[in-house]
Amino acid sequence: MKTILILGAGLSASSLIRYLLARAEAENWYLKIVDQNIDLVKKKINGHPNAEAISFNALDSKERKPAIAHADLVISMLPAIYHVDVAKDCIEVRTDLITPSYISPEMRVLNDEAKAAGIVIMNEIGVDPGIDHMSAMKVIDHIKAIGGKLTSFKSFCGGLMAPESDNNLWHYKFTWNPRNVILAGQGPAACYMDNNEYKYIPYNQLFKKLDRFEIPPYGFFDGYANRNSLIYASTYGIEGIPTIYRGTLRRPNYCQGWDVFIQLGMTDDSYAMTRSETLTPRSFLNAFLPYEKHTSVEDKFKKVLGKEKADLFEQFESMGIFDDSFTYGMEQASPAKLLQQLLEPKWKLEPGDKDMLVMYHEFEYSLNAEHKKITSSLVTLGEDEVFTAMSNTVGLPVAIAAKLMLAGRITERGVTLPVHKEVYEPILAELETFGITFDEKEMNL
Amino acid sequence: MKTILILGAGLSASSLIRYLLARAEAENWYLKIVDQNIDLVKKKINGHPNAEAISFNALDSKERKPAIAHADLVISMLPAIYHVDVAKDCIEVRTDLITPSYISPEMRVLNDEAKAAGIVIMNEIGVDPGIDHMSAMKVIDHIKAIGGKLTSFKSFCGGLMAPESDNNLWHYKFTWNPRNVILAGQGPAACYMDNNEYKYIPYNQLFKKLDRFEIPPYGFFDGYANRNSLIYASTYGIEGIPTIYRGTLRRPNYCQGWDVFIQLGMTDDSYAMTRSETLTPRSFLNAFLPYEKHTSVEDKFKKVLGKEKADLFEQFESMGIFDDSFTYGMEQASPAKLLQQLLEPKWKLEPGDKDMLVMYHEFEYSLNAEHKKITSSLVTLGEDEVFTAMSNTVGLPVAIAAKLMLAGRITERGVTLPVHKEVYEPILAELETFGITFDEKEMNL
Repeated sequence: MKTILILGAGLSASSLIRYLLARAEAENWYLKIVDQNIDLVKKKINGHPNAEAISFNALDSKERKPAIAHADLVISMLPAIYHVDVAKDCIEVRTDLITPSYISPEMRVLNDEAKAAGIVIMNEIGVDPGIDHMSAMKVIDHIKAIGGKLTSFKSFCGGLMAPESDNNLWHYKFTWNPRNVILAGQGPAACYMDNNEYKYIPYNQLFKKLDRFEIPPYGFFDGYANRNSLIYASTYGIEGIPTIYRGTLRRPNYCQGWDVFIQLGMTDDSYAMTRSETLTPRSFLNAFLPYEKHTSVEDKFKKVLGKEKADLFEQFESMGIFDDSFTYGMEQASPAKLLQQLLEPKWKLEPGDKDMLVMYHEFEYSLNAEHKKITSSLVTLGEDEVFTAMSNTVGLPVAIAAKLMLAGRITERGVTLPVHKEVYEPILAELETFGITFDEKEMNL
Repeated sequence: MKTILILGAGLSASSLIRYLLARAEAENWYLKIVDQNIDLVKKKINGHPNAEAISFNALDSKERKPAIAHADLVISMLPAIYHVDVAKDCIEVRTDLITPSYISPEMRVLNDEAKAAGIVIMNEIGVDPGIDHMSAMKVIDHIKAIGGKLTSFKSFCGGLMAPESDNNLWHYKFTWNPRNVILAGQGPAACYMDNNEYKYIPYNQLFKKLDRFEIPPYGFFDGYANRNSLIYASTYGIEGIPTIYRGTLRRPNYCQGWDVFIQLGMTDDSYAMTRSETLTPRSFLNAFLPYEKHTSVEDKFKKVLGKEKADLFEQFESMGIFDDSFTYGMEQASPAKLLQQLLEPKWKLEPGDKDMLVMYHEFEYSLNAEHKKITSSLVTLGEDEVFTAMSNTVGLPVAIAAKLMLAGRITERGVTLPVHKEVYEPILAELETFGITFDEKEMNL
């Protein structure tokens, strides 16, 4: 019997645990699942004989390492900052590790040690990063195989709401850490390459510089630039590609509205507002509008929207931004924290809500003097508010990778990510059986 | 004979040293001046018998403390971050200290120790902070004395160019640390109080939200909000004032132009641009403009300016932003560093250039059911590129404070700043003999 140790059983672990439990008897697996919320784990295990909920502090190496030593495979669903410490334990006791998170610089330097220990540390095998790598590499490898020369790669991903649950004017609810949504795009300018020119988009322009496209029958989407796109050229082995761009997807009107908050300064997390506990949503907004004795907050806000965005007024009104009936009560809160407090109840997943994960790649390549384009798109809906599209698309690739690793079907050792055929081919194939299917189209340009 | 130890003899120490040397014999002072550039100090001393240039590392407490112990007064013109360490030495050996810099939180906590040691640590006694405090407190104390109730205080200051040397389209040259000019306004939103409402202006709005006013015969000025104005209410003893605002002054067209750099992201100091050493001014600018195969950088930039700012095109062209004839050669440089590199030669003080220091206060108060306004303005020109208005307005208050302290005319002990009559009255009076004179006007509202 092979033991799988799962560290962390939060929201995105639901689909992972369901997959592994469903195959545990047949595959002869035993699951040990650690979380600070042991009741949550017990509920997810639901009495299955091949699994147990364990209560220890997964962040403490002393408590964690004996369990890692006894396991055949560790899956870390902990917050990303803890993966490196877990990885060091895994190297020491020679146990394979899977994480869905980005490879940090600290993780990368463990590559040689992991190879020397003969283990695999598989990272970036959720959805974004994860399915994006696998689905892109499949097309890139195909273009290389037929002798094509890739000239442009653009890739977009977004966690949105299924049409049937898309019932607010922002067309958005939180399927991921709300704080990350509020702070999205802050920090260094987004960077990409356009026809061999390095391009930078600062935060204050990010939600203005949009790509709009249609994915039938789901309608239109807007993409905004996502951090540093350039690093994907080396990850995907396409160094020197003239155009490379990665973006995040939202529904139309979201970015246009969000940009208003950015321009007003309401997403800033760098300082505490004076007497923030006394602010109401209305006075919070008013703190970013000029003083005008005889003008209402609504009318001052309409001036900010101007003619161009006048249509968005109701979108803001519906989120309660003019509400003066309660105070936040949060001391020493930044604008970003107050905005999050306002939005969390408005953009919360309700029972039965279904989310929607959308991914869209666009490849341009030349072959025999012809210029061609391949698009590859994925739209997958959640089952409910627990087995969300987000949970499925993060958890299933992790789970399938676990199966492959336990079966000895991953040969590469060291700190790696799923860009090689031996990994992405079987995973993409099995994901299709769950309806996670890319629609590829090719056309001449 | 009393010994004055001066730490740091950079640009803003020129007027300070000249003042002290001119009175050294009559007052029986001996100056010891420490700077890493000893030749610079010798030039400033010019063989005066009551002064010597000393060469030790002023940043090293071991080398510094014996000299402090032997001095009757220390004047620290070092970068602001070093003042606290100097202050600790001064407390230990009971020597008074003057610095022109803001009181840091670390400096503030030394108050009790300084009092116990029986010394004065006088801070914020340059121009801004310094002359602003003194000239404002003079009017505030007057309004209080006549029983008036202050309802609004606005204060602006700027280091600009005298009309005769105002010969570029930005109407600006560097009379202060260029890096601080490039980064001005970054960080937490500027904060002020307007009719009892807290107001915040984020960086991306800062150079759009301007106050314009005229100071005859010098013409028009634009003011933008300067950091946190609220702290001045307690400093000036006017807590609860309904409106308080502090701003920085520039000539018209400066802020409108600078805002374009902010919007494009060219003042960002948070990341290094890829292969920054290969950038020319033109390709640096183009990195923030979209790719358009058949459009020149100039035409793309004109689109950014739009109709509203079309008049500013020449202002940008004249600063060499479209120049493609040289590369910066700076590795790992941020946009802010590259912009500074471009501007330093263009906005450099030329021999004979005269700068201009402008300060403008506006007080509103009510008295006997009348509502009145007092304006207090200062415009003072530099003598040349060494004895600048900046050097005079920073150095002279420091020097006069030194004279007062050595004569035992400052009675308050501890960590303090010049908001009390015993300090500001004699200093403002003597500054007038140097032509640093405020023009006060009163009117009914």
